[in-house]
Amino acid sequence: MIRVAILGASGYSALELIKLLLRHPNVQITALTTRQTDARPVGNVHPELAHRLDLRLENLSLNQVAERADAVFCCLPHGASAAAVAELLPLGKRVIDFSADYRLNDPAEYSQWYGVEHPDGARMAETVYGLPELYRERIKKAVLVANPGCYPTSAILALAPFLRAGAISPDGIIIDSKSGVSGAGREPKPHLHFPECNESVSAYGVGTHRHMPEIDQVLSEAAGNQVRVVFTPHLIPMDRGILTTCYAQPVKELSTESAQSILDRFYAKEPFVRVSGALPSTRHVAGTNFCDITVRNVRGRLVVLSVIDNLIKGASGAAVQNFNLMHSLPETTALL
Amino acid sequence: MIRVAILGASGYSALELIKLLLRHPNVQITALTTRQTDARPVGNVHPELAHRLDLRLENLSLNQVAERADAVFCCLPHGASAAAVAELLPLGKRVIDFSADYRLNDPAEYSQWYGVEHPDGARMAETVYGLPELYRERIKKAVLVANPGCYPTSAILALAPFLRAGAISPDGIIIDSKSGVSGAGREPKPHLHFPECNESVSAYGVGTHRHMPEIDQVLSEAAGNQVRVVFTPHLIPMDRGILTTCYAQPVKELSTESAQSILDRFYAKEPFVRVSGALPSTRHVAGTNFCDITVRNVRGRLVVLSVIDNLIKGASGAAVQNFNLMHSLPETTALL
Amino acid sequence: MIRVAILGASGYSALELIKLLLRHPNVQITALTTRQTDARPVGNVHPELAHRLDLRLENLSLNQVAERADAVFCCLPHGASAAAVAELLPLGKRVIDFSADYRLNDPAEYSQWYGVEHPDGARMAETVYGLPELYRERIKKAVLVANPGCYPTSAILALAPFLRAGAISPDGIIIDSKSGVSGAGREPKPHLHFPECNESVSAYGVGTHRHMPEIDQVLSEAAGNQVRVVFTPHLIPMDRGILTTCYAQPVKELSTESAQSILDRFYAKEPFVRVSGALPSTRHVAGTNFCDITVRNVRGRLVVLSVIDNLIKGASGAAVQNFNLMHSLPETTALL
Amino acid sequence: MIRVAILGASGYSALELIKLLLRHPNVQITALTTRQTDARPVGNVHPELAHRLDLRLENLSLNQVAERADAVFCCLPHGASAAAVAELLPLGKRVIDFSADYRLNDPAEYSQWYGVEHPDGARMAETVYGLPELYRERIKKAVLVANPGCYPTSAILALAPFLRAGAISPDGIIIDSKSGVSGAGREPKPHLHFPECNESVSAYGVGTHRHMPEIDQVLSEAAGNQVRVVFTPHLIPMDRGILTTCYAQPVKELSTESAQSILDRFYAKEPFVRVSGALPSTRHVAGTNFCDITVRNVRGRLVVLSVIDNLIKGASGAAVQNFNLMHSLPETTALL
Repeated sequence: MIRVAILGASGYSALELIKLLLRHPNVQITALTTRQTDARPVGNVHPELAHRLDLRLENLSLNQVAERADAVFCCLPHGASAAAVAELLPLGKRVIDFSADYRLNDPAEYSQWYGVEHPDGARMAETVYGLPELYRERIKKAVLVANPGCYPTSAILALAPFLRAGAISPDGIIIDSKSGVSGAGREPKPHLHFPECNESVSAYGVGTHRHMPEIDQVLSEAAGNQVRVVFTPHLIPMDRGILTTCYAQPVKELSTESAQSILDRFYAKEPFVRVSGALPSTRHVAGTNFCDITVRNVRGRLVVLSVIDNLIKGASGAAVQNFNLMHSLPETTALL
Repeated sequence: MIRVAILGASGYSALELIKLLLRHPNVQITALTTRQTDARPVGNVHPELAHRLDLRLENLSLNQVAERADAVFCCLPHGASAAAVAELLPLGKRVIDFSADYRLNDPAEYSQWYGVEHPDGARMAETVYGLPELYRERIKKAVLVANPGCYPTSAILALAPFLRAGAISPDGIIIDSKSGVSGAGREPKPHLHFPECNESVSAYGVGTHRHMPEIDQVLSEAAGNQVRVVFTPHLIPMDRGILTTCYAQPVKELSTESAQSILDRFYAKEPFVRVSGALPSTRHVAGTNFCDITVRNVRGRLVVLSVIDNLIKGASGAAVQNFNLMHSLPETTALL
Repeated sequence: MIRVAILGASGYSALELIKLLLRHPNVQITALTTRQTDARPVGNVHPELAHRLDLRLENLSLNQVAERADAVFCCLPHGASAAAVAELLPLGKRVIDFSADYRLNDPAEYSQWYGVEHPDGARMAETVYGLPELYRERIKKAVLVANPGCYPTSAILALAPFLRAGAISPDGIIIDSKSGVSGAGREPKPHLHFPECNESVSAYGVGTHRHMPEIDQVLSEAAGNQVRVVFTPHLIPMDRGILTTCYAQPVKELSTESAQSILDRFYAKEPFVRVSGALPSTRHVAGTNFCDITVRNVRGRLVVLSVIDNLIKGASGAAVQNFNLMHSLPETTALL
Repeated sequence: MIRVAILGASGYSALELIKLLLRHPNVQITALTTRQTDARPVGNVHPELAHRLDLRLENLSLNQVAERADAVFCCLPHGASAAAVAELLPLGKRVIDFSADYRLNDPAEYSQWYGVEHPDGARMAETVYGLPELYRERIKKAVLVANPGCYPTSAILALAPFLRAGAISPDGIIIDSKSGVSGAGREPKPHLHFPECNESVSAYGVGTHRHMPEIDQVLSEAAGNQVRVVFTPHLIPMDRGILTTCYAQPVKELSTESAQSILDRFYAKEPFVRVSGALPSTRHVAGTNFCDITVRNVRGRLVVLSVIDNLIKGASGAAVQNFNLMHSLPETTALL
């Protein structure tokens, strides 16, 4: 039994993570932390979990965490997360970090997008990006994994196969994403107030969203060339799911069928990517770790569509998938 | 042209009120107030109104308001509202108060339910309750009208005809209401955060909601007997609308047809109440000042269902209806 | 491994059932049936299940079903269901019937409410009603279980403890239920068209809903006296969940605390009923087999609120719970 | 008073049109038609309109329509619409056609996209496209106006100013639209069933949507060059509104500020287009005839975002705007 701690356990990703781990035969959740000073039963913070997990959220020190747990899922905000990771790794803990702290390789770029100095910059470049479909072998050997952002997961899974194959131009890629509101977190904000975002669609962070450099970096690696995407996220009046619509220019003529073959081959053995000729709906992946992908050639341009559940394949499911790989467990454990 | 001010113009009721008044041929909106110290164009506070109304929300004194306006719609919180009303009336202004401050007749009951001393208690008993279907003649002569609460409007319109007719028992009345989220106001709160209230139904304020004594008072007046209802409000994942399902015991056998006749007669000349044999949907009154009512006898018990738009017939539309009556204008002006 | 067939596998209950059974360690799904004449891969009918279950929906005879399966979940329409059950039982199959065919005891009452003669009326009275919280021991020995309706489940779990304890009057019980739209099934209908039921609440089947006699029967049994409820279902713009608000008259004074004690005792050992002092939300049971219940005394009247996921505890989860009991498996298998 | 008929009055566009026309001081609605053979009160077909319009939907011949009305709004399906228009025009009626029949100029292209021969092809090229912001003077003189599609309205208003100014390349334009479900009409279909499209996003008609050639044609005219766009519509779980996100390549460097100036100048005198620096939300135009537009330069690419209410500016509001222009009435009558 692997003893597991979750740092920052009051948010939506942590809730989904706990629900997944409760079904994991090799895991025992032993610690849940919070910045609140008074310990509260998990059922008070997440009423969904009442009678299912007899633990409290506690304001624990990292040493206390290290005593109780073998592996740590870190759901802290960026900055705070790296500070915790830098302490936990020397104590021999394996860490899966949900924050953005170790996703980028370059501390300077991190400072530029996140507006703060990275507290553990030296470790950035060596940390593996936790997308099993691209980096499975490195994840297996990792003690620290940077769990990908939700938008990057959907965009990279749609585009990487074509860039690796040299089938599309690295220039002029457009990524238009539509996300449910749970991706914005649990803290109430005016634009997330029900009557404000219900029955409405809007774009946000146009040209400024922090997932843009993350997508750039991973797609550049896939292309072997610099990729700089135009990324536009949109807020959709629903809880769960991201649909990402990507537009790319084939290097030479590429029919829908040929394009789909590239996807089919790339994902032939993947347990959680389903390539289909039918247009995907977020509904069909909600609550699952699946990513459904479809491609179409429209007037010579490639349109690649992918859907994920932003809290599962886009966060907690991916984390469990990485956890399984890091611990030599069957990759799909607790995920089907 | 009647010059009109709106106190506390940043909320949802004020937005709907402005939209209605912009269509009113006898009204010019001349002042919008806010507690914020910096004046802001109305289009910044309510983007819906950009290019439609060239006014700023300003932190005005009541004297400044009185100089600019002949009539005042007061959308301030309870307590603050009565304090403003008590100053405005002596200046000769007609006031329609959206708050609960003048709905109850009894200062002691107000203190009990609202937890504060009423700042203008002497005026409570003499203030008319602004439900035209019950108090039209008194409203016509009023200088101050207490605009009804949204739940009370839906419940009273459903039940008053039967109590006035002596057709149902004043005892044992149950009122089960379902409301869209806009009724809870514009301020972000954890339980109104989109991912918390989307795709979920819950009751709140069971036995403690402040609209309960308001309903009691008006229904008691209609019955000529003390009525003490059991009132349960529920939050529904939609913006607009209240459906109220009332259960009452007929005094003697009362078929669905006879019950509907009572409604038909009571509302025969009402411009905004539609009695129907078909079960009502909030959708059919959304954005309108209508109240649709249907009654059924189920196993000897009367089930009366009513729907309104909580922000229109339940707030701003009723206010304009009252305004029209107070100013001897056609009652439906700006409301159809 | 128990081989399992699902008859009528294209609806929402069947989808949820398959998802649960895929996690069941003692079950192998071996047959899915449809009235369509062309066999279709389950992933075409339920895209959620693509790559997860390699089966087709087939137009199988009951003999073919009996060859392939040891146990049968019957998701056919009423009437058709009893016809199938009557054939399957003599072949030695255990059956869990999702339809209403064996819920009522009395063929005459069935004819009255369902408008057809019952094809297997003799078996009605002897069939156990599959609510483990009331009939666990009988379910363990049953070869046929009538899986309860979704509304009855929520209402009965809220009220039965008080009726069994003789704490509330069997007269004058009011049940006001609010349900998500998935309860109405997968067939498109005008009132279930998205723009018609989105952003709207309405009642339906007032005084005529077929779950009313089902509630009557089970509550009467609990009370040891005839119970005839007033039941009003409402359609809520969300997918999943039922909130039922029940109103009942205590026989003698009964405080909130005492009432909650009755619930606490009744459900002390139940794995899927959570009694709580906090008002319940359907969100907190969505996707689970839990029923959350809360009680309040309001002005002498008892208000009991319960929430379930209509497709899980209200259908497929209950079916798996019954299946587990019938097969001497741990009751919570595949349900946590 | 202009007597007005609405052909095909049972759909959502007709409902919105009636609501607008009820506020129009120069209009009397005199006929509503339906293909149903039994005449039904409008309040039965559209319960929203009960007590507001005392008319029946009738199966009238075009001659009967011509006797009753001076102007005709035609909400019939494509094909049927042109057949009616070809009869009504010789009778001296002015017609605003909601269908696609007269939007394209070329009968051959029409056949290709709509799969049928055009019944009145000769009139196609001479019919004015009813977008006042581009064709106001021609509309004023027209007896027949082709009311634009909802997607084309949002896309053309976003892009035409830049193409007219020669500021963006006519090549490589990408249009990614997100629409509420009411745009798909009132007829129930499996993918529009509430539980199917609620809480889900999907694309549809990728590369095959009939609005694509319509956008091409009008933008080509604006550019003075052939434009062939890539257009991807998406279905969003809400009733109303379209957000269109356009991606285009500036011909030479074009800052956000300069791009916004182009929009500001183009729309300076337009009553229903609001150019803003803030990102638009469909909520802010819901129920109105406004189109809000915002532009941003992202990494050298122009991102232009526009929002409309698909049933108002995208259909019925535009129709009334065209009607006002055709009848020399103030353009904003009944629309503010």
